[in-house]
Amino acid sequence: MFKTNEPIVIYPGSGSGASEAAYVNTLSPGDRIIVFETGHFALQWKNIAERLGVRVDYVPGNWRSGASEDELESRLTADTAHEIKAVVVVHNETSTGVASRLPDLRKAMDRANHPALLMVDAVSSLASFDYRHDEWGVDVTVCGSQKGLMVPPGLGFCAVSNKARAASKTAKLPRHYFDWEQIVTQNEKGFFPYTPATNIFYGLREALEMLEEEGLANVFARHARHAEATRAAVRAWGLEIVCEDPREYSSSMTAVFMPDGHNADALRGVILEHFNMSLGVGLSKFAGRVFRIGHLGSFNDLMLIGTLAGVEMGLRLAGVPHREGGVMAAMQSLAPAPAVAHAR
Amino acid sequence: MFKTNEPIVIYPGSGSGASEAAYVNTLSPGDRIIVFETGHFALQWKNIAERLGVRVDYVPGNWRSGASEDELESRLTADTAHEIKAVVVVHNETSTGVASRLPDLRKAMDRANHPALLMVDAVSSLASFDYRHDEWGVDVTVCGSQKGLMVPPGLGFCAVSNKARAASKTAKLPRHYFDWEQIVTQNEKGFFPYTPATNIFYGLREALEMLEEEGLANVFARHARHAEATRAAVRAWGLEIVCEDPREYSSSMTAVFMPDGHNADALRGVILEHFNMSLGVGLSKFAGRVFRIGHLGSFNDLMLIGTLAGVEMGLRLAGVPHREGGVMAAMQSLAPAPAVAHAR
Amino acid sequence: MFKTNEPIVIYPGSGSGASEAAYVNTLSPGDRIIVFETGHFALQWKNIAERLGVRVDYVPGNWRSGASEDELESRLTADTAHEIKAVVVVHNETSTGVASRLPDLRKAMDRANHPALLMVDAVSSLASFDYRHDEWGVDVTVCGSQKGLMVPPGLGFCAVSNKARAASKTAKLPRHYFDWEQIVTQNEKGFFPYTPATNIFYGLREALEMLEEEGLANVFARHARHAEATRAAVRAWGLEIVCEDPREYSSSMTAVFMPDGHNADALRGVILEHFNMSLGVGLSKFAGRVFRIGHLGSFNDLMLIGTLAGVEMGLRLAGVPHREGGVMAAMQSLAPAPAVAHAR
Amino acid sequence: MFKTNEPIVIYPGSGSGASEAAYVNTLSPGDRIIVFETGHFALQWKNIAERLGVRVDYVPGNWRSGASEDELESRLTADTAHEIKAVVVVHNETSTGVASRLPDLRKAMDRANHPALLMVDAVSSLASFDYRHDEWGVDVTVCGSQKGLMVPPGLGFCAVSNKARAASKTAKLPRHYFDWEQIVTQNEKGFFPYTPATNIFYGLREALEMLEEEGLANVFARHARHAEATRAAVRAWGLEIVCEDPREYSSSMTAVFMPDGHNADALRGVILEHFNMSLGVGLSKFAGRVFRIGHLGSFNDLMLIGTLAGVEMGLRLAGVPHREGGVMAAMQSLAPAPAVAHAR
Repeated sequence: MFKTNEPIVIYPGSGSGASEAAYVNTLSPGDRIIVFETGHFALQWKNIAERLGVRVDYVPGNWRSGASEDELESRLTADTAHEIKAVVVVHNETSTGVASRLPDLRKAMDRANHPALLMVDAVSSLASFDYRHDEWGVDVTVCGSQKGLMVPPGLGFCAVSNKARAASKTAKLPRHYFDWEQIVTQNEKGFFPYTPATNIFYGLREALEMLEEEGLANVFARHARHAEATRAAVRAWGLEIVCEDPREYSSSMTAVFMPDGHNADALRGVILEHFNMSLGVGLSKFAGRVFRIGHLGSFNDLMLIGTLAGVEMGLRLAGVPHREGGVMAAMQSLAPAPAVAHAR
Repeated sequence: MFKTNEPIVIYPGSGSGASEAAYVNTLSPGDRIIVFETGHFALQWKNIAERLGVRVDYVPGNWRSGASEDELESRLTADTAHEIKAVVVVHNETSTGVASRLPDLRKAMDRANHPALLMVDAVSSLASFDYRHDEWGVDVTVCGSQKGLMVPPGLGFCAVSNKARAASKTAKLPRHYFDWEQIVTQNEKGFFPYTPATNIFYGLREALEMLEEEGLANVFARHARHAEATRAAVRAWGLEIVCEDPREYSSSMTAVFMPDGHNADALRGVILEHFNMSLGVGLSKFAGRVFRIGHLGSFNDLMLIGTLAGVEMGLRLAGVPHREGGVMAAMQSLAPAPAVAHAR
Repeated sequence: MFKTNEPIVIYPGSGSGASEAAYVNTLSPGDRIIVFETGHFALQWKNIAERLGVRVDYVPGNWRSGASEDELESRLTADTAHEIKAVVVVHNETSTGVASRLPDLRKAMDRANHPALLMVDAVSSLASFDYRHDEWGVDVTVCGSQKGLMVPPGLGFCAVSNKARAASKTAKLPRHYFDWEQIVTQNEKGFFPYTPATNIFYGLREALEMLEEEGLANVFARHARHAEATRAAVRAWGLEIVCEDPREYSSSMTAVFMPDGHNADALRGVILEHFNMSLGVGLSKFAGRVFRIGHLGSFNDLMLIGTLAGVEMGLRLAGVPHREGGVMAAMQSLAPAPAVAHAR
Repeated sequence: MFKTNEPIVIYPGSGSGASEAAYVNTLSPGDRIIVFETGHFALQWKNIAERLGVRVDYVPGNWRSGASEDELESRLTADTAHEIKAVVVVHNETSTGVASRLPDLRKAMDRANHPALLMVDAVSSLASFDYRHDEWGVDVTVCGSQKGLMVPPGLGFCAVSNKARAASKTAKLPRHYFDWEQIVTQNEKGFFPYTPATNIFYGLREALEMLEEEGLANVFARHARHAEATRAAVRAWGLEIVCEDPREYSSSMTAVFMPDGHNADALRGVILEHFNMSLGVGLSKFAGRVFRIGHLGSFNDLMLIGTLAGVEMGLRLAGVPHREGGVMAAMQSLAPAPAVAHAR
């Protein structure tokens, strides 16, 4: 799933724990890192770093686009002393539905010829759309069990490059639970240094078999198709997609702005009450202004239409100004009339 | 669920076995009964009876309407010798989506003052829409576990009136497995005469709790609402509903005619292939001409829209002539614009 | 499992239903059959036959030994008119722990050169010890899902020889639900004539994989070993095993006589109360005199010792006269001191 | 379960993570604490503390007795500067089967009138035998989900006193994931600061219902009874129990010394191979010298006898010198002959 030959460390814990693991294994108190402000989860990465005593160069963003490769290149080039130890990018910003273009960011780091580690939050992208830990030169990929991997929450993952493991030798942040060296070492002997969340492993084994059965390329195509149909619905409703750049559309979820003067949480409440469906909340500075439609994991065309119908009926019931026909547009996107039908 | 104070016999078996039980416990070889031809499952009742050596007065029907109370009254009135021992009605004809009007049929029997037993197949109506074993004077109500009761197949039920139990004292059809007296007697002591399908009982207990939690009236209202929305979709597509009489619309499923020259199984194949959804097949003389949409059991608004979207997209992909907008009509039916919204 | 190449019919139902199926598919009203009185379940076969209008030659037995091949040969030889249509043998009498020697019975039928069908109740032997439908020339083997096959109750099986299928062509007992021809015919096309107990099939598939993984020979050896250890315990307690002939010891369960003046149900009650373990009840004429220890299905050495310990502690608590040391004898039987240990 | 009115913080994680949480929330780099060397898990607590930059006064122990109240009192009394910030005691040492006497330790702290926090590892005692967070004045009680609470591993717990929460205000160890204040604060609003291991919560709810149904006093009595029967077996075998002081016997597991010259792991291998039962390994300095018998959680008399039989048969098969009769002694302990029986 990670497309890597390097070790993957599995913690009993959440994706948030795996983020902490990325830091405490590679950094020392006072180290500088770059975090791109792409949304709420980028902010979390900034906060975690600062709580651990790491200094953060927080690259401002408008929450509607991904990390900028130009900005990255210029900042790294300027850091001739190589003070910056790591660059943190949230691959798919779950709060905005914007997916940063990792290959372009990697190229920017290479052009700058800078040795900073590349840390990527792939919590809501892994196993939903294309991800390549080795090929993209990622040093730490952080993930959780409960999204694209389709198992209950309770596992946090770090895929760890050799360069990141080397960094851990000199990293001085105190660590025990999240120390990845003891896990890698014990795993090689078939053990864990402490009790693993065994039962979730059984689910994970089955989930991996399901993903392989479908074929990862087909899984990605399915999510891309659902994302496109979702955007077709949003456009038909006359609402605005948060993500500005089509190159950065997320395949796993879509965030949508409410019309001015209408509160997303009121809409979400109506939909929950009438249709027992819970949309994603607008996070941090998007609170009340944005709702989010998830379309990842074990999900098919008809579940997507049901989901979008819940939104469309909710918009009507809540009195939110919109055009009808989003569901029809999504159906047209999923199942366009075959060429032969035009002749009839 | 049966709305009865009389015993309910539970067999390890299917609804088809419970039908056989209704016969072998109450009839003797050569007895005459009336079976109304309402569709495929009525035909099954006729066949079972004949295989067991029972003579069947098969009242012809066009598979688009329920049992006729006038026909019933005239036939029973004509039978002054009281040769007819039982009247068989399939409450909800799963092959046609037509629900016979049991209270009217009961009244016809009462007007004819005829002692025949009333046997009802409630396999696809029980726990989905109104059913009243005692109030309607039903003598044997036959059901299975896998539809409105929402548990795996493997249980057959007979609710049995005192009159039916009395009939079993003189009934001469050979019987052992389906003999209900030994079951009723042993049940009173907490036993079964042979190994029951224990594990399904646990599911049944939970299902009954779920139905009670929702409230049976709410369960019925939910199914009625889904049936109405389904019909709105069918009408919008310009297709024809099999059931002719609105008083007989089924709340648990809807059968739909294909346009002439188009095969229902081809459509069903396209939908199965593209959307992994399996519609009901046209049975017996409806083979190829009819497809059936189920909307019973644990089912909600968004699942219904997903289902109807699968049909609508399938119609398009299969090149079946239809108007678009069935899904929109269903959404309008489920969630009409609130009055306050008109003011905007 | 049946060691057959002939069709196996699967009913939603119990083993008792499959017994009825064996009769109604092959016999006509008034037909004569032989049933060996080996215990309670043989009595059930007799009762079912008589309820269906079949005449039974009931060969008396003392409930402590299996069907007699000499008795069978002499009865069949005497029946020169070939009036006897079937011979019924309960392979493993669950009420007594006596396993009839089927190969010897088959040879007796062959010596008598008699065309009667051989019907075998393998409910509590199949998948627990050796069974060979084809090699032993059995015509109908009856089984259920809930013993050696280790899945929930709810399936009844008939393995059916060509000779039995031929007999069904002229058999006149009325039948619908248990008619095996319609099932065999529909199964060939991938269908069932009525709703099958689908969910138990999933369990069955897994159970068959487990049995194949262990290897059927190993499964049989395991049960034989547990049966021998159980008998070692019974002997050590000074109690009497019901089965008289060591050639007929059952591998799946052991029935034990209580000392005179002591009631088995009192003992069973003490054990249930103190150890939450439910021993088999003494059936019919063994009521109160016999308790039964099951050791079949998914069962291992330590579960057996726990079971026997429950019996031994129960005997003590209930004040039943016995010698201690049954559990120790069973442990000695399961794990005799290795040869090398004697040298110490 | 904790017998507390103070908040209980639940982490997605292991008990080892909850230990780290106890430290990072209450201590600052360079702080001094006392850890009693009671066995392997006490050593773990020492190691974790040192990795986090905390100085440990490690009170030596022989791994056969619990923490000494006299030693504790004298050390605290000597610390007039109140440099010692916390005292760590493993309640039930899973490596030795020794349960420290917490009420006596609490009294010693009170006599010394010392403000150190009391931190207790209750991983293998909670819900198995008596535990009282509030009454015993414990400041942090650490536990996991997979032992007495009977659910899958994946949850770590900290019950936290007001004094401990107050300490967290000045504690300077860096923390994010294990920071308990954000969890307590968010829990009050019905949230978690990051994704909790939701599915294990459902299991936990059911487990708590089971414990309440049985009654906690009965649960404790059951474990005490099983522990006493286990010791009866060990004594009968002529082997030596690790725990020296009967006041400190553990109710949840029993550790046993091998005879000199015999390796515990060889015995464990024989038992695993023959009986598919995995005994606890000897940890750290007990490696090869000790095996451990667990008798906690969802466990009954017959499972205990099965377990002990596996040990006794394993001792024989592995050629380990011992006396037979351990299982008989355990049965005698569990079910002594009733008084009335003596009269017979």
